[in-house]
Amino acid sequence: MANLLHHPLCAFSRSIRLAFAECRVEYELNEERPWEWRPEFLALNPAGTLPVFIPDGGAPIAGAYAISEWLSDTMGERAATAFEPFPGNAAARAETRRLVEWFHQKFYEEVTDYLVVEKVFRRFGPQSSSPDMAAMRAGHDNLRYHMTYIGHLTETRSWLAGDAMSFADLAAAAHLSALDYLGEVPWEEFEPAKNWYALVKSRPSFRPLLQDRIAGFVPAGTYADLDF
Amino acid sequence: MANLLHHPLCAFSRSIRLAFAECRVEYELNEERPWEWRPEFLALNPAGTLPVFIPDGGAPIAGAYAISEWLSDTMGERAATAFEPFPGNAAARAETRRLVEWFHQKFYEEVTDYLVVEKVFRRFGPQSSSPDMAAMRAGHDNLRYHMTYIGHLTETRSWLAGDAMSFADLAAAAHLSALDYLGEVPWEEFEPAKNWYALVKSRPSFRPLLQDRIAGFVPAGTYADLDF
Repeated sequence: MANLLHHPLCAFSRSIRLAFAECRVEYELNEERPWEWRPEFLALNPAGTLPVFIPDGGAPIAGAYAISEWLSDTMGERAATAFEPFPGNAAARAETRRLVEWFHQKFYEEVTDYLVVEKVFRRFGPQSSSPDMAAMRAGHDNLRYHMTYIGHLTETRSWLAGDAMSFADLAAAAHLSALDYLGEVPWEEFEPAKNWYALVKSRPSFRPLLQDRIAGFVPAGTYADLDF
Repeated sequence: MANLLHHPLCAFSRSIRLAFAECRVEYELNEERPWEWRPEFLALNPAGTLPVFIPDGGAPIAGAYAISEWLSDTMGERAATAFEPFPGNAAARAETRRLVEWFHQKFYEEVTDYLVVEKVFRRFGPQSSSPDMAAMRAGHDNLRYHMTYIGHLTETRSWLAGDAMSFADLAAAAHLSALDYLGEVPWEEFEPAKNWYALVKSRPSFRPLLQDRIAGFVPAGTYADLDF
């Protein structure tokens, strides 16, 4: 059976789990701790990053970028589903990809890296240490700017990139869900972004993420609550 | 006419200029200084990053990721060329994309950011300052590891990602060419990587890059030399 190496609080892994569920890809989920640098894992992905997907009998596909595009390339080989990761014409697909890069790169560097990596992964890593408070403050400040941007997008469009839900929505929701597990999202102050997130959070594809539990980190009270 | 906003030493812009030349896309090149945060530029790409492509009469396409995939999506609309950015079947395309991410993200963070950004962009930026020597040392060390990886790939394959030249080769060559302008690449110690680079460098698509000149930075002696 196909196999996805992931970590429950890795936003990139989460975006692919959501996309796989929307596309009804069947696979086994296996937790990987990238900070352990397992030789077998590095043989699958020399970059040492998550997620890594191993199709049944196929070569490993490393990284959310390659996996999400592979999902789009192989749409024709699966039972048709309503979800296309990059829907529409070439211009619409480009806008979705711009926003995927926005969340998987800019949001990651400006928010997720400061809040999730500082708070969780630093504790497990080789140089276990306390969170850097200045970094966490920067993450909180940056998050507010991104919440405003999400609100701005959803007030002019049905979904982040246009008329249809796309991988941009899943990438954004993946990062926010990891932050939400840690209770880091000030939902009440950002109503439009909250309304958009509620739509994504209520999809069946989201359910397995809401059941994730990470040893040593109790999820925030409303993490699994659809009426948050 | 279509228009590409770029900076001559921006590796992401360089990778798109190479891909456009290989695909015979016609466009005008306009230099942008992203550190100036021009409001008109931020209206085109709120992330403030390069490159940004504005197709003739079309909406802007921001970032090397969206532009390279748009190039692949619109292959059928242009006169056929021999170059396909992501050639082969879905598995081959995934391997190309893994390596594009390797160079445009990992190599960028571990090498280009330390050497090109420290040496050049820091001088132009809002907080003009001298290069950070520790960062530059880290960049030099990391570069050696990446040169070895390039050599390893080219010793088992015709091109970095497989049998055909792909956007992975152009992305890798784009970063190395920016470093090479600054004389930062120890070619003599990495013969297999040098042989691969010589092949890419000798393509007609590379010629305009070799004519780039950045005020205040004289290119290294062999930068434009095909027999380097």
